[in-house]
Amino acid sequence: MLKQSQMLIPTLREVPADAEIASHKLLLRAGMARQLASGIYTYLPLALRTLHKIQAIVREEMNNAGGQELLMPAMQPAELWHQTGRWDVYGPELVRLRDRHDRSFALGPTHEEVITSLVRDEINSYKKLPINLYQIQTKFRDEVRPRFGLIRCREFIMKDAYSFDTTQEGLDRNFQAMYDAYTNIFTRVGLNFRAVEADAGAIGGKGTYEFMALCDIGEDTIAYSEEGDFAANLEKAEVVYQPAAKPATETPAPEKLHTPGVKTIEQLTKALQIEAKQIVKSLLYKVDDKLVMVLVRGDHELNEVKLKNLYDASIVGLATEADILSVTGAPAGFVGPVGLDSEKVEIIADNNVQDVFDGVVGANETDYHIQHVQPGRDYTVSRYADLRNITEEDVCPRTGGAIKFARGVEVGHVFKLGTKYSTALGATFLDENGRSQPMIMGCYGIGVSRTIAAVIEQNNDENGIIWPVAVAPFHVHVIPVNVKVEEQRQTSEQITEVLRKAGVEVLFDDRPERAGVKFKDADLIGLPLRITVSDKAAEEGTVEIRVRKTGETVHVKLDEIASEVKALLARVDRTGAELFGV
Amino acid sequence: MLKQSQMLIPTLREVPADAEIASHKLLLRAGMARQLASGIYTYLPLALRTLHKIQAIVREEMNNAGGQELLMPAMQPAELWHQTGRWDVYGPELVRLRDRHDRSFALGPTHEEVITSLVRDEINSYKKLPINLYQIQTKFRDEVRPRFGLIRCREFIMKDAYSFDTTQEGLDRNFQAMYDAYTNIFTRVGLNFRAVEADAGAIGGKGTYEFMALCDIGEDTIAYSEEGDFAANLEKAEVVYQPAAKPATETPAPEKLHTPGVKTIEQLTKALQIEAKQIVKSLLYKVDDKLVMVLVRGDHELNEVKLKNLYDASIVGLATEADILSVTGAPAGFVGPVGLDSEKVEIIADNNVQDVFDGVVGANETDYHIQHVQPGRDYTVSRYADLRNITEEDVCPRTGGAIKFARGVEVGHVFKLGTKYSTALGATFLDENGRSQPMIMGCYGIGVSRTIAAVIEQNNDENGIIWPVAVAPFHVHVIPVNVKVEEQRQTSEQITEVLRKAGVEVLFDDRPERAGVKFKDADLIGLPLRITVSDKAAEEGTVEIRVRKTGETVHVKLDEIASEVKALLARVDRTGAELFGV
Repeated sequence: MLKQSQMLIPTLREVPADAEIASHKLLLRAGMARQLASGIYTYLPLALRTLHKIQAIVREEMNNAGGQELLMPAMQPAELWHQTGRWDVYGPELVRLRDRHDRSFALGPTHEEVITSLVRDEINSYKKLPINLYQIQTKFRDEVRPRFGLIRCREFIMKDAYSFDTTQEGLDRNFQAMYDAYTNIFTRVGLNFRAVEADAGAIGGKGTYEFMALCDIGEDTIAYSEEGDFAANLEKAEVVYQPAAKPATETPAPEKLHTPGVKTIEQLTKALQIEAKQIVKSLLYKVDDKLVMVLVRGDHELNEVKLKNLYDASIVGLATEADILSVTGAPAGFVGPVGLDSEKVEIIADNNVQDVFDGVVGANETDYHIQHVQPGRDYTVSRYADLRNITEEDVCPRTGGAIKFARGVEVGHVFKLGTKYSTALGATFLDENGRSQPMIMGCYGIGVSRTIAAVIEQNNDENGIIWPVAVAPFHVHVIPVNVKVEEQRQTSEQITEVLRKAGVEVLFDDRPERAGVKFKDADLIGLPLRITVSDKAAEEGTVEIRVRKTGETVHVKLDEIASEVKALLARVDRTGAELFGV
Repeated sequence: MLKQSQMLIPTLREVPADAEIASHKLLLRAGMARQLASGIYTYLPLALRTLHKIQAIVREEMNNAGGQELLMPAMQPAELWHQTGRWDVYGPELVRLRDRHDRSFALGPTHEEVITSLVRDEINSYKKLPINLYQIQTKFRDEVRPRFGLIRCREFIMKDAYSFDTTQEGLDRNFQAMYDAYTNIFTRVGLNFRAVEADAGAIGGKGTYEFMALCDIGEDTIAYSEEGDFAANLEKAEVVYQPAAKPATETPAPEKLHTPGVKTIEQLTKALQIEAKQIVKSLLYKVDDKLVMVLVRGDHELNEVKLKNLYDASIVGLATEADILSVTGAPAGFVGPVGLDSEKVEIIADNNVQDVFDGVVGANETDYHIQHVQPGRDYTVSRYADLRNITEEDVCPRTGGAIKFARGVEVGHVFKLGTKYSTALGATFLDENGRSQPMIMGCYGIGVSRTIAAVIEQNNDENGIIWPVAVAPFHVHVIPVNVKVEEQRQTSEQITEVLRKAGVEVLFDDRPERAGVKFKDADLIGLPLRITVSDKAAEEGTVEIRVRKTGETVHVKLDEIASEVKALLARVDRTGAELFGV
């Protein structure tokens, strides 16, 4: 029997000063975690129970999807990281150390090098592929700014999986199996999440998804469709061009305007009393070694990833003030496409610019703009393309439905690695024809400890945590109003025992505290059900059960407690229905 | 269904060159572990299954004994280690690193500092004590000589527990609970072990036991009694003095012998044709600042720990050649107690020396010894005490029964810490009278990964591992003689499924290999039972079951397979009886 008096659950009344977000505050206040150093936490018994439950779900789904669990070391020889070039690339985030013989090691932030060298040494024939290996392990990343409690840590717990295939199709299958497993995992954990398309980079294909728990404190903005399953990071969402009807009236002839000191879109809309979408923003970029003028509508944001991909470029950045002056003859804020020498600079534009039939642009002259400018008529654009961030006024590229924005915390990531690591480390296999080929890899991560924080972030109120049934440290909190009343204590112990035998996990608050203190702690800790044992138990044979999530209370007969508790747990949320539903 | 073709079990035919001991060779050969760097291993899927089973047993017994599981970080701030002084004392075995802000950290080899500071911050009243907190975690020790596979690693898995009490009696209770839990754990794991009394040092009491798995490769020698439960490290075992009868004949008068170049006991026995026990060895020691001559019988070994404890000294060591010459007038090899000035040097002796009624000693003159020397008559001893190592000719200090020697590997350690850490880190509590007192601590460790190696070390033969049922990666290996025969494959799959439903874990060898190869691998991997599916399954409805441990084979009807397998598993060993016995 787990008695609260004997457990280390140091709840706090005060909101800790350095905690900014709900999950961080509540992990501290509910006595679940304590910081040892910046971004380094001890998991106290309650948090560890939740951690173990999440791990069990991860393990089950990974095994069902064909994964095999192993456990690799945290200490990784530097030589391996030199072979893939990551020793230098990874930067100060990689925790490094030297052993007593002055040999360098990294503390694994991820295990591509170790797993690839292992598989290289142990597998050399197509007959032993595909294989999918995973581990649940403590990882180390020396974050520049650890914060938000368990969201961004320097030492954290991750599930990392690596697949090895002989063909691209094999990788696609493994990738899909992992995508499905992740969907199951985050569903079972009780998260509200989206699988978000991320930039596939050089690998291409439908190659990479981030699993985002939706919550306001997320560092990324996600664009998603409420109808289908489309979701993408703001920067990566494709914009479907919807042409506007050409106006019936002819655009007047261009007219130069004196706009002293008016440099920004905001200043321009005020000065000219127009909307931002009537302005065409002109931005001079350096794309690798080439200067390019990029036009976007005044109310849109240029997307540098799309610009980079359009040119298949390595480096993209704004041109220097000197470049701007030499190409346009004017400083930033007054540049525009009209009259530019297309030999000197290519002009490209976002699709929507072609519909700005009567627009305002910079005049390439200090303190001047031009109005009534029309593309095609007054300036030439060499290419139109999708070059901007999506907005909530755009439509879903799949369904055409409405787009919504949300913020998200990344809890999982599935990624097609291809042959980057197998080539660098020589992980090859002999195919059916005896030819040596590099293995084709995928990698798949879940932030296991971060998931605890994401669950809390989505499930709390002003009084504390509201655990989904599947990952609650216990299912039920049994609280006698006054534990010194012998009948109350005995009834509480009996209930605990009856529920335990019925497969329900109970925390019994046997502390000699006032009822109010115990109720406050119960709300803070947030177990799905609270059973209050008062004198009514002896007088009427009933106890009160309160549902943490809804505040609903019911009075239940003692001899029906097990079935009633299970029925209530099945109704709390979909994770409860899965565990206790009939 | 776990199919061997899809699992990473890279068995090896060759004995790896660098592996010295059975468990190391077999972990590599059975495809269970691979070395990444010296003393740093990857646990492949089979080993991880065993590791998880050991962890589950540890967790269950720790919880039953009142332990609460938490999880502390591996990265520990140097400041904590400075406060206890261990930053300097621990030496190069402590893995150290600096973060991006140049702050120093240790990678935890043990967690006294972290747990003590945690409990200090969270508990301050006797009302919340006692408490016993434990974790199962990866630990780091930069061993000067990692070796023996999982026996002595630089990165390894440990269960460490820490108890906090208000009184010495409380500590005694927690200590006993841990002692009992450890006994249960190692029994359930299937180890042949002894709880060995170790040197309690400054803490005293019945304060410290090492749990030793008995095996020849052990680095420590254990003296134990086969009758009772007495066991102690060779160096720590008490010797019971059993006086010898005084001989009837008078000892002749002392006689000087010319023994040129005869310095050692061995040389002396040869030169004089006597037994070693007729010689009295005289050793000049420096005990702190004092010179002491210590006498032990020629066939006995002086025990420096006992000498140190006798004087309650800080430092004990052999005297320098110069000291020996100045005190005795002779070099080492020729010194003795006869005629020594007791003002200059105290003479003490092991108990058994008083029975050397007619002995040989050094003459304090180069190349000379004296024979027919009798203590009391020819030289004076100021004190007799137990000063030597126990031998197999001694008797058990508890029962008086025979003493046996064995070698052991330390798999667990229970230790009364007292107030060393709580004082250093200020972990105090207010007692019933409102007085501040330091908490009284105990610490309790189990080498979880080392236990795998110890189990294999005790359970193997020339063909491979012989797993105890409780920690076998699987219980049964199902092997069709020819997997390409469809009936054999189907029967194998049916057996696997039937057994799975009966709670028996099965590894199904579905590889298209020759039967001989599969049988060799099965012996190497060493699952308790092997079921061979041949054409007889279709023809006669029977399969052969072979018990790995005994080589016994039985033929079993397919429709009785589940009950037969469980009955056989129950008979394999005591761990099988516990899991599958009726």
